[in-house]
Amino acid sequence: MKEEVIETEEIFNGRVIKVTHDKIRLPDGGTSCREIVHHKGAVALIAIHADHLYFVRQFRVPTGEVLLEIPAGKVETGEAPIETAKKELKEEIGAVAANINKLYEFYTAPGFASELIHLYIAEDLEFEEQALEKDEFLDIEKIPTDSLQDALDTGKFRDAKTIIAVQYVLSYL
Amino acid sequence: MKEEVIETEEIFNGRVIKVTHDKIRLPDGGTSCREIVHHKGAVALIAIHADHLYFVRQFRVPTGEVLLEIPAGKVETGEAPIETAKKELKEEIGAVAANINKLYEFYTAPGFASELIHLYIAEDLEFEEQALEKDEFLDIEKIPTDSLQDALDTGKFRDAKTIIAVQYVLSYL
Repeated sequence: MKEEVIETEEIFNGRVIKVTHDKIRLPDGGTSCREIVHHKGAVALIAIHADHLYFVRQFRVPTGEVLLEIPAGKVETGEAPIETAKKELKEEIGAVAANINKLYEFYTAPGFASELIHLYIAEDLEFEEQALEKDEFLDIEKIPTDSLQDALDTGKFRDAKTIIAVQYVLSYL
Repeated sequence: MKEEVIETEEIFNGRVIKVTHDKIRLPDGGTSCREIVHHKGAVALIAIHADHLYFVRQFRVPTGEVLLEIPAGKVETGEAPIETAKKELKEEIGAVAANINKLYEFYTAPGFASELIHLYIAEDLEFEEQALEKDEFLDIEKIPTDSLQDALDTGKFRDAKTIIAVQYVLSYL
């Protein structure tokens, strides 16, 4: 079933993504092409405090929309995902967690991108100051856990990792 | 909060994705750059029959792994997502559904990509022949709904849309 890359052409090597156009050998011996977005991976956090789930609201240029998402961020080269998770929790919602545990890891768009998200649950939070990066603009929003079902049903969450997080909270907490 | 694109450079215009490097105006008046993957969107299907949820198993070049995913496919230009959904259900698992209803729509990777997935639930299925496209190689796998929780807990699902689908089935069915 494996598809083997037999030729790779680098199209773009940016700050966040690298793009290649690859020629591949199909399982039946034929060839085809794949357009691939290489990404270093990311973390996302289910941050729960006092029966509220924490979100950030930010404009996302690729979508042209302001989205409500759980805190998240890219893993930098050489960084352990758990360290990225602690850093993003502090940067985006100003929180430090006494307990952080990994729940799942998943590809966001495996048809064209390598991005793998490591999803953590952060509990027993203490809040300090938000510490955003210089080109990040986002608002913190917290939603009572007993309003999450209604928010999910009415389409308030339009981001895959955030829907996974909300479903998890609704099922287990 | 809006970030406005003030300059766009086309890097690549492929069969599946278009990539641009955009200069943007930040909410505080400063500027920054964004690397953007433009995608026409996709559908995915929760296909349930006789207490089994249907999956396809396929090699995904960007991830280097064989993944277990719910049936899915790209929306072609001018195609209504519901038509794509019916087409993919037939192509990938050979099924025709008496009932298809939309559940959610979500961006898969809004930090760098515009891909929006329309998630449907397909019920009352009748099975015919799989009708794959010529460079598609995938196996159908069905999992009893009462085994899904264990499969989720043990990390069998490594794809975001598939985790959303499994959690949905576990919550509502």
